[in-house]
Amino acid sequence: MRDFSQNHDWLSINTATVRKQSGAEVPLSRIIDQCAERGIRAISPWRDQVAAAGLDQVAKQLKAHGIGLSGYCRGGFFPAPDAAGLKAALDDNRRAIDEAKTLNAPCLVLVVGALPGALDGRAAYKDIARARGEVRDGIAASLEYARQVGMPLAIEPLHPMQAADRACINTLEHALDLCDELDAGRSGMLGVALDIYHVWWDPKLQQQIARAGRERLLAYHVCDWLTPTRDLLSDRGMMGDGVVELKKIRGWVEDTGFAGFSEVEIFSALDWWQRPGAETLDMCIERHRSAV
Amino acid sequence: MRDFSQNHDWLSINTATVRKQSGAEVPLSRIIDQCAERGIRAISPWRDQVAAAGLDQVAKQLKAHGIGLSGYCRGGFFPAPDAAGLKAALDDNRRAIDEAKTLNAPCLVLVVGALPGALDGRAAYKDIARARGEVRDGIAASLEYARQVGMPLAIEPLHPMQAADRACINTLEHALDLCDELDAGRSGMLGVALDIYHVWWDPKLQQQIARAGRERLLAYHVCDWLTPTRDLLSDRGMMGDGVVELKKIRGWVEDTGFAGFSEVEIFSALDWWQRPGAETLDMCIERHRSAV
Repeated sequence: MRDFSQNHDWLSINTATVRKQSGAEVPLSRIIDQCAERGIRAISPWRDQVAAAGLDQVAKQLKAHGIGLSGYCRGGFFPAPDAAGLKAALDDNRRAIDEAKTLNAPCLVLVVGALPGALDGRAAYKDIARARGEVRDGIAASLEYARQVGMPLAIEPLHPMQAADRACINTLEHALDLCDELDAGRSGMLGVALDIYHVWWDPKLQQQIARAGRERLLAYHVCDWLTPTRDLLSDRGMMGDGVVELKKIRGWVEDTGFAGFSEVEIFSALDWWQRPGAETLDMCIERHRSAV
Repeated sequence: MRDFSQNHDWLSINTATVRKQSGAEVPLSRIIDQCAERGIRAISPWRDQVAAAGLDQVAKQLKAHGIGLSGYCRGGFFPAPDAAGLKAALDDNRRAIDEAKTLNAPCLVLVVGALPGALDGRAAYKDIARARGEVRDGIAASLEYARQVGMPLAIEPLHPMQAADRACINTLEHALDLCDELDAGRSGMLGVALDIYHVWWDPKLQQQIARAGRERLLAYHVCDWLTPTRDLLSDRGMMGDGVVELKKIRGWVEDTGFAGFSEVEIFSALDWWQRPGAETLDMCIERHRSAV
């Protein structure tokens, strides 16, 4: 296992971690500057932040700082109540793939979607098997284009507590079943983004990480699970502040040959988003060295 | 599949559903009377409520009303940081088995426990595999006594969002693996309490229900998953108010030969616990007929 204690060469910052600082939204350009000042070599930005900043401008700023991407957030949200909605989702994923390509991302992360409308409290239907079928078809269609342009797609299994509204792929096993179905040849164009927050509890985690192997592990995200957890979405903890065995899991991941970034993605409406970004980033660096 | 639309013969009330009424704690004797008034044939009471009311008094009241149990809540919480804690948990489970026997329960429901101390925000250790081992050993030891007195133990897989603090058995598959290990002969003395709130999201649910079969399905609990869900513990919905495909899942359960009670267990600090108990119970009956 790699030694992270001496530097933060393999730290990446998912920009959601510092998208709010001292309670206020911060532009992506500022976040990139803050990362550059700290010698952070990679980020994973969100589409809405990139759109607000301007895609070409972001690409230019990253290049000027020598900062790369560990992933691009995010495609997905495939299910829809009708054909027009399904088509719109495919079009949007095609644009996301193009943006990821412009930013030279190693992969586009897919939060695949779930019961359409559930995120607004009005599910258009309850048939989760239908949603899973629409996800399958959506990934299959997007993968064709992704192969053409050479942009790997990384399915992110989300915690089962988000199965209704955000993603109906909820275990690594399920994500890998889908990878096997749609990319039997393990081409490297379809894999998973493994976020420990979503999967740490899974009794089959070690086994399924080994099954994923190097070709399927396209991204690795860290944070921590707090006790108590006060919110289903945005009460994630800083690495070391919760109960996840981070080093043990990274060991399993690196046993596959994975040698990429450890990307910090912390949604924390009640804590870290209320603090200055400098404090959050400095703590990410410290904990990357000591706890990840 | 049984037709529930004409009566509520197979409705059971988990007393947690109405333990608070109009915001205030209600004694178990009152809940039993309220159920009796409505022709509800079964309840599943909690140990603390029974202790407060007096075990023999509860047994007498139930008998007078002709009300049975669909389960007894709850044993479990096996993991502990030291040998004294592990021993205390076994002793407590033995007492729970005796109480269940006195109340003539069909099973003792096990919420198996997780990282000891995590429920109070101070996990004594983070090694979830260790907790799972302690759960295994705890069930094995309790099962010996349960067999002697003839009280089936029902492992309740809890939602993965409760893996840290309440139960580290989080999928039906995992619970059944444990049943196979500890009761290979499918004696009927070890099985599962299947609560749709905890398992509805699982892509392997249908397959694992079939695997469980009649001998392993000892209890069936219903409520609903709300969108949004505002709290990890006590924001469960009334059947029909959320996104769970209740009839589809009951169909899978009854395909195994299960013909027992459908037990309503709703933790709802923000909604139902604020309403009069009569309103909650009447709605349970209505939704049992229309939505379950």
